[in-house]
Amino acid sequence: MLRIGIFGASGYTGQELLRLLLRHPEVRVDVVTSRQYKGQPVADVFPLFVGLTDLEFSDATPEIIAESADLVFLALPHGTSMQFAPAFFRTGKKIIDLSADFRLRSVDAYEQWYGKHGAADLIREAVYGMPELYREAIGRTRFVAVPGCYPTGAILGLAPVLREHWIDTKTIIVDAKSGASGAGREPQTASLFCEVNGGFKAYKIGQHRHTPEMEQELGLLAGVDVTVLFTPHLAPMNRGILSTIYATLEREVTASDLVDLYREHYERDKFVRVYKPGLFPNVSAIRGSNYCDIGLAVDKRTKRVVIVSAVDNLIKGASGAAVQCMNVMCGFPEAAGLDMVGLAP
Amino acid sequence: MLRIGIFGASGYTGQELLRLLLRHPEVRVDVVTSRQYKGQPVADVFPLFVGLTDLEFSDATPEIIAESADLVFLALPHGTSMQFAPAFFRTGKKIIDLSADFRLRSVDAYEQWYGKHGAADLIREAVYGMPELYREAIGRTRFVAVPGCYPTGAILGLAPVLREHWIDTKTIIVDAKSGASGAGREPQTASLFCEVNGGFKAYKIGQHRHTPEMEQELGLLAGVDVTVLFTPHLAPMNRGILSTIYATLEREVTASDLVDLYREHYERDKFVRVYKPGLFPNVSAIRGSNYCDIGLAVDKRTKRVVIVSAVDNLIKGASGAAVQCMNVMCGFPEAAGLDMVGLAP
Amino acid sequence: MLRIGIFGASGYTGQELLRLLLRHPEVRVDVVTSRQYKGQPVADVFPLFVGLTDLEFSDATPEIIAESADLVFLALPHGTSMQFAPAFFRTGKKIIDLSADFRLRSVDAYEQWYGKHGAADLIREAVYGMPELYREAIGRTRFVAVPGCYPTGAILGLAPVLREHWIDTKTIIVDAKSGASGAGREPQTASLFCEVNGGFKAYKIGQHRHTPEMEQELGLLAGVDVTVLFTPHLAPMNRGILSTIYATLEREVTASDLVDLYREHYERDKFVRVYKPGLFPNVSAIRGSNYCDIGLAVDKRTKRVVIVSAVDNLIKGASGAAVQCMNVMCGFPEAAGLDMVGLAP
Amino acid sequence: MLRIGIFGASGYTGQELLRLLLRHPEVRVDVVTSRQYKGQPVADVFPLFVGLTDLEFSDATPEIIAESADLVFLALPHGTSMQFAPAFFRTGKKIIDLSADFRLRSVDAYEQWYGKHGAADLIREAVYGMPELYREAIGRTRFVAVPGCYPTGAILGLAPVLREHWIDTKTIIVDAKSGASGAGREPQTASLFCEVNGGFKAYKIGQHRHTPEMEQELGLLAGVDVTVLFTPHLAPMNRGILSTIYATLEREVTASDLVDLYREHYERDKFVRVYKPGLFPNVSAIRGSNYCDIGLAVDKRTKRVVIVSAVDNLIKGASGAAVQCMNVMCGFPEAAGLDMVGLAP
Repeated sequence: MLRIGIFGASGYTGQELLRLLLRHPEVRVDVVTSRQYKGQPVADVFPLFVGLTDLEFSDATPEIIAESADLVFLALPHGTSMQFAPAFFRTGKKIIDLSADFRLRSVDAYEQWYGKHGAADLIREAVYGMPELYREAIGRTRFVAVPGCYPTGAILGLAPVLREHWIDTKTIIVDAKSGASGAGREPQTASLFCEVNGGFKAYKIGQHRHTPEMEQELGLLAGVDVTVLFTPHLAPMNRGILSTIYATLEREVTASDLVDLYREHYERDKFVRVYKPGLFPNVSAIRGSNYCDIGLAVDKRTKRVVIVSAVDNLIKGASGAAVQCMNVMCGFPEAAGLDMVGLAP
Repeated sequence: MLRIGIFGASGYTGQELLRLLLRHPEVRVDVVTSRQYKGQPVADVFPLFVGLTDLEFSDATPEIIAESADLVFLALPHGTSMQFAPAFFRTGKKIIDLSADFRLRSVDAYEQWYGKHGAADLIREAVYGMPELYREAIGRTRFVAVPGCYPTGAILGLAPVLREHWIDTKTIIVDAKSGASGAGREPQTASLFCEVNGGFKAYKIGQHRHTPEMEQELGLLAGVDVTVLFTPHLAPMNRGILSTIYATLEREVTASDLVDLYREHYERDKFVRVYKPGLFPNVSAIRGSNYCDIGLAVDKRTKRVVIVSAVDNLIKGASGAAVQCMNVMCGFPEAAGLDMVGLAP
Repeated sequence: MLRIGIFGASGYTGQELLRLLLRHPEVRVDVVTSRQYKGQPVADVFPLFVGLTDLEFSDATPEIIAESADLVFLALPHGTSMQFAPAFFRTGKKIIDLSADFRLRSVDAYEQWYGKHGAADLIREAVYGMPELYREAIGRTRFVAVPGCYPTGAILGLAPVLREHWIDTKTIIVDAKSGASGAGREPQTASLFCEVNGGFKAYKIGQHRHTPEMEQELGLLAGVDVTVLFTPHLAPMNRGILSTIYATLEREVTASDLVDLYREHYERDKFVRVYKPGLFPNVSAIRGSNYCDIGLAVDKRTKRVVIVSAVDNLIKGASGAAVQCMNVMCGFPEAAGLDMVGLAP
Repeated sequence: MLRIGIFGASGYTGQELLRLLLRHPEVRVDVVTSRQYKGQPVADVFPLFVGLTDLEFSDATPEIIAESADLVFLALPHGTSMQFAPAFFRTGKKIIDLSADFRLRSVDAYEQWYGKHGAADLIREAVYGMPELYREAIGRTRFVAVPGCYPTGAILGLAPVLREHWIDTKTIIVDAKSGASGAGREPQTASLFCEVNGGFKAYKIGQHRHTPEMEQELGLLAGVDVTVLFTPHLAPMNRGILSTIYATLEREVTASDLVDLYREHYERDKFVRVYKPGLFPNVSAIRGSNYCDIGLAVDKRTKRVVIVSAVDNLIKGASGAAVQCMNVMCGFPEAAGLDMVGLAP
């Protein structure tokens, strides 16, 4: 059994990692840390684990954790991850970082959108944790940076048409709708039930920090610079991101052509499901699962493709992707511990 | 007191009309019809009216209703409204139709998107019921066609930039998110609580029937043909539509310039609220009110304007607009019975 | 116009007070205080007020407020209200306190359930703000303590059967289900959207601080000591409390007898609606209104009455009741500013 | 691999059965029936199965199904199940019936609460499918009647105190709150999103058909007749039942005594989790899992026990219990295919 440590396990991605790993056939979680809940049983903080684990939150240091873990997940906020990642890296252990700190290959881009980077020389060690794009590199590295939740839906939704140069790369709009767990488990007024329920809003229009991450990966796929207009929205649901993606087509294609292209492109990718023409994903079809579902339409009147992708932001958009990367890194079956069917209704 | 009849009052727009009219200072509702609930007290079907009205649903004919009503609202499905509107029109009474049947000025467009029109010669009598665009014509007519819920948010969101030719009319995308009441009160699997709650989906991508209505009015505003790519979505909330609207700017402007333009444009329009730069509407700010709230952003990187508008689909997007038209038609203060503050939380 | 001050206006009851008072025909809100938001426009904090008020939050002292207000509402947490109430009282102004600090007539009971009372001598000045029980006393006082949200539904639900001695006072169980706004607008993990949505829980079983308040008023109605087993629950909705109340009947009565008794009892009380036998209230029938709806059943097999009452916790359970008391205190029509029909759907 | 047929698979319990069985290590689903969806791929009707199954709905007869199935689940409405169960029984196959038709041992009781029974002689063949009470009998039978969702929470919540005679059997009140999936997937106005969301109501007070089922099993546990006052409520959530159960204690015990009793009682029962004193279950801790969680309190002031139990109505309250019974009947590990951790948030 691979021994696992989760560093910063008191948020929603930490809870979800633990949920997935407790049922993973090849691993055992040995240590979970949380400064806030230090000394408390995990099951007291997250009652879904009552009877399923005796783990307590600790505030162990990276060095201590590295002694009892073969692989660590960092489920920390950006800015914090970079403070701890180097110490873990030096121990020679495998690291899967769920923060934004090592996703951008350009230090300049990071510092423009996030602020000062404190571990810039580690950036080159990180592989972007999207097996659909970088399966082999993930299999060879011991340091993975898990993609952001919004970029996951956008990149998987756009990769085939960008690689094939079917769209005008200057016309991409990503209009994404996310459940409230994307805002994290920190108490804040805007995340209260009464503020979210019955409401719907756009936020950080054209200014969200996931924009440069999308542009980096989409640019690599297209082979040219790509500019994305990204508008995130907060929807009154716990989980899920539905991304409605618009771009102008450079050639005349049908929805069937697109479906064929996507199915071929994702042939080896068990967790991407391409819908037949005329069907489009609903968040309720992927909630609780590791799938990214994709539907494709062509609007002939305006010569645009409309791509709809759906992911569970806590699974395929975070902790599920992290486990998938672990599987690839460790030579486990890629779907180990991840073959959940979505929970509907 | 103006005597009112509501024809087809058992759906959500009928219920909302009654809710508004029961508190309107100038009117009295005398008759409400419903074949399904004929003979039943309104308060048994809609318990929010317990103790507030003794009305019973009837199945009176247009001729009978016209005897006891000075003005009738038709809260019927499209296709049905056209069957009854001519009879009401012949009685000489004022008519406010909430269906889609008389919104399109072109019979061809209607028949292309909806099917055969059975009262085509009445189309020319109808005034499009958006006081912000047609206040004077509404004041002179006795037949109003109330706009659709989606077009309301889209048109109010786009009118100023179209009139001033600030945007490229071939680049408009309307990505709208609606609460479930937009699907009506007819029982159907897709509208069940368990199907909607926790889910989020796009539907009728590029094919929704509100598209030609938007294009008609936006084209009139722009003075040229306008093509809109319209994607409606179903959000897990009861009320409200948030429209995120994209278009390429034809000139360099700032968000402040846009706010100034919109405030000037809507100076006389009490129910349009233009937010200051940097703020954007949330459905929870307008739910339960007759306001259309608008926020404006410029994405310099992609030279696009992003317009966010929010309306309560049952009020400003249907029954509130209908009452507002009634006020204009009858010479009442335009805000009579409509000065509710939104209900939040 | 009566000049109003709201002291502590940044919570949900403060927001709701302002919402109601902005549309009240007899008053004008002149000052609202909030330490947290001092200097900020109210409409920036609560966007539903955009365009409706130019008020800014201040941190004025009681003495300053008293100069520009004829009546003040204290929308403060318990324990805080008692620090400011004496200063307001000394100015001779009318005071309506929405906290728990002056509801209990017994200082001992207060200190047992809440902690040290810092203004015990003011308790005797306060009238319990339930017009259905104390209309005349409220009309004569200048200091009202507005009932708690849970006690409102429980007391109105039980008053008639207790006064008439139809039930065994030792058998009362109040099983109440509240929306999340009852927990207030302070950020805390347990009130986050993702913690509440999809969940349902009981809390403080038999230990909630509203218990002694219920027992005080129910005991006065019964003329003997009453012990209540009260179990509050958190339901995934914004507003509303549904109370399901059980008690053993002391005589053989039918649901019709109960309905007759309740209708007679509440004949003068416009905001209590007693349903006909077989019908029971739904929170959606009273949300957004000042009504307390009551349904009545007899379970012959177990000789119990089952009483179901529903109130909007922010209106009839707090700010609406406060306005109703203001109307009675000031000689306005009791329903002034409160005749909203509930918002459904 | 055990070959499975699901008869009547187009409702929520059918969908859930399929969800569970697709991931069960010992079985293969070979046929699913639905008259409504005959000929349609399951994945078109329930998109969460896209890519996971090629099954199509058929309208095969019991005889045909019996040929290709070793065990059939009947996921039919009550009244319909009794029409098909005899045909399946005659084929000698194992049957697990999820309807109410074979839960009541008394034909009289059935006919009093449900109507005429068309297969009364089969009642004696059925074992009540609650392994926590009847594990051995289930292991020996080939016909199981799965308990109702409400009775599951009530019976597991009360079994230990009834068996030990710690409570007065005439004082039991079950106040239960259910998610909307309990009402099924048939389109009906009362189940629409807009009718349920933001609402909360009691229904069928003292008259719900699950009452005799509770009384039958609780009576057997107590050894005397038991009368239950049962009040179901509809809560705005998809899944889950929280039951708050009240009874008068016959002896002085503490919450710790109760917890000890329950833990001992359920020692062998992996799917019952008894919380430590002071903690109570939240629906969000069991949603998506097969657990029944139980919390226990004593209200000294009124000498009552308050028991709170929580189950996912579609899993432990229906399809999960059915799979658990299958495991026991077929000698599989009792938790096979059922070891999901709940989905939170």
